[in-house]
Amino acid sequence: MRVGIVGGGQLARMLMLAGHPLGLEFRFLDPAADACARMLAEQIRAPFDAIDALHALATASDVLTFDFENVSAEALATCERICPIRPGVRALAVSQDRLAEKRMATALGIPVAWHAAVDDLEQLRSALAELAAPAILKTRRLGYDGKGQVRVAPGDDLPAAWQRLGGAPAILEAQVDFQRELSMIAVRAADGTERYYPLTENLHLDGVLALSLAPARVSPELRAQAEAQVSAVLRHLHYVGVLAVEFFQVEDRLVINEIAPRVHNSGHWTIDAAVVSQFENHLRAILDWPLGATEARSEAMMLNWVGFRPCPAGALEVADLHWHDYGKSVRPGRKIGHCTVLGRDRAQLHARLERLCDHPDLGALARRACAMLAAGA
Amino acid sequence: MRVGIVGGGQLARMLMLAGHPLGLEFRFLDPAADACARMLAEQIRAPFDAIDALHALATASDVLTFDFENVSAEALATCERICPIRPGVRALAVSQDRLAEKRMATALGIPVAWHAAVDDLEQLRSALAELAAPAILKTRRLGYDGKGQVRVAPGDDLPAAWQRLGGAPAILEAQVDFQRELSMIAVRAADGTERYYPLTENLHLDGVLALSLAPARVSPELRAQAEAQVSAVLRHLHYVGVLAVEFFQVEDRLVINEIAPRVHNSGHWTIDAAVVSQFENHLRAILDWPLGATEARSEAMMLNWVGFRPCPAGALEVADLHWHDYGKSVRPGRKIGHCTVLGRDRAQLHARLERLCDHPDLGALARRACAMLAAGA
Repeated sequence: MRVGIVGGGQLARMLMLAGHPLGLEFRFLDPAADACARMLAEQIRAPFDAIDALHALATASDVLTFDFENVSAEALATCERICPIRPGVRALAVSQDRLAEKRMATALGIPVAWHAAVDDLEQLRSALAELAAPAILKTRRLGYDGKGQVRVAPGDDLPAAWQRLGGAPAILEAQVDFQRELSMIAVRAADGTERYYPLTENLHLDGVLALSLAPARVSPELRAQAEAQVSAVLRHLHYVGVLAVEFFQVEDRLVINEIAPRVHNSGHWTIDAAVVSQFENHLRAILDWPLGATEARSEAMMLNWVGFRPCPAGALEVADLHWHDYGKSVRPGRKIGHCTVLGRDRAQLHARLERLCDHPDLGALARRACAMLAAGA
Repeated sequence: MRVGIVGGGQLARMLMLAGHPLGLEFRFLDPAADACARMLAEQIRAPFDAIDALHALATASDVLTFDFENVSAEALATCERICPIRPGVRALAVSQDRLAEKRMATALGIPVAWHAAVDDLEQLRSALAELAAPAILKTRRLGYDGKGQVRVAPGDDLPAAWQRLGGAPAILEAQVDFQRELSMIAVRAADGTERYYPLTENLHLDGVLALSLAPARVSPELRAQAEAQVSAVLRHLHYVGVLAVEFFQVEDRLVINEIAPRVHNSGHWTIDAAVVSQFENHLRAILDWPLGATEARSEAMMLNWVGFRPCPAGALEVADLHWHDYGKSVRPGRKIGHCTVLGRDRAQLHARLERLCDHPDLGALARRACAMLAAGA
């Protein structure tokens, strides 16, 4: 079976690493000369909206998927008559537009933050006046990792803020006063079978995911709430594959922050600590193969390498630490890799993370991880 | 870091799958157009003893290793001045010659089966007369998976047997009346650190490994015996990397059958069930990185696909079953892939294997696996 992937970043790379043992072949489309999936599959080097290239990829594939959501849904839709696209173009289109995403959630009865559509400076003024509190102005489309966002408060220089986003259609979102950030990775098969990984607790630094701790300690009610919300989205979109949903926890309630129609950074711990990883389960789902178990085998903390490549010496001496270098060159703010530390319980996980606290590159992150563990204990 | 591999079979492929997350780049040398590592690295397509090609590989690599032992040791030795070769050429040379291997073991005080060098028909006659029992005539070099072997007994047509091996230098080995076949996978770092995986119990069918069960149930004394023997070999050869040793268990004693200076089929269970796999540990060792833990996380049974590719439907429904398709075309006797079933204890492992017993392709092997488990329980 041949799987075509639109995008050749680290998510495509990890899909390929999971898929080769399944006997799959891969091809991918990416304009970058240094796409980090290039060592693992044949690349079609072209822009993401190049119709001819997309059709060539579809023609060479039994199924098409994508590793990020800023792919042209219109261009991708023209491939539908060539081979199946999973998850579908509808899921992609909804997740590309923050307003459409929030409207879908609201229609499904799922809580979202207060928000207002903002298409011009006048609407920004009136929305902020209505909210009368600090808020975040986000582009409706093409935002990720904190990009395309600016904080605004009543009294700010709104024309400047509006210009920073380039005057693109936007959405003003109230800031949510949350206790924790959580995410759920789920997978749905074409026959409607759904499986959920345990909830993950996340910490972002400068708008980029830094740490993920799983399974998050949550009440059975909160877990049931998350599963019900995710299930509603999966069914509404006739979804096939892995879906990630980011939540804010406000007291004992969940507010959906963002939906990603793909494997997700906050599910990377599943490679080493779940029975079957999010990457393998995404492939199983889009190929109509049976889904794998989503249980966690152990406690896990994932540490993201953002803008740096740590030295493996020292780190690899920590027992049950697993290394995931994406083979990229280092640039500020770029995700270079991650490592995941496992433990049979939180105490063992803490002891192992403490051993990392003196590491020249990973020490600062490990100390934050220890604090995160202590806070949740 | 760039790792060069002489050979591009499934072992090279699994080394690459373990090595990409470590941030490594690979190149390999193999004459085959359909070498199954070709999807994961750049291939230098040339015979294994092509000096120019070997030197090109060495020049492009920070360290050189090999994925099977029938590489020309003489040709490889000429690369030593270009980059380190791990494990060394000496380990390769010894393991290429059954007689040299047995002499080394004997010199180290390690029990081996009765044997005699056989260079011509006359020596075959006299050796068999001396033994006065059925035995196995094996070529000294280039044998694997039961190839280059023929059973002989007093009174047989010895000229015919001698001709079947092509008159190559051979060794006559007494058949060992063993209770079980066991193997140990070990890894040694350049600084002398050694780690051992738990002993594995193996079942061969038609001379080819069919099933591996780990950890094997053995007494602490037997495990200590195995570790002492393997350690003696590792130290004698100044070994760096993963070494596999196959044993016959005769009562409470171990007799070395064969040594493989590489990752080994009977250690494939370590991908899914050990903290760090044999493949990652081989790479860590040859790169001078810290070795990883070799403990088993769970009970594991590995089922080899010899000459067939099973249908994933049905099989992937079994919880904690892990699929390893090598991406090869099917030919009789060829290793096409394997799968490993895990269980937290032997009872859970048995129940999961039982679910496979009705599978159209894997059923027969699963029934043998259940019998093997029952016998060892």
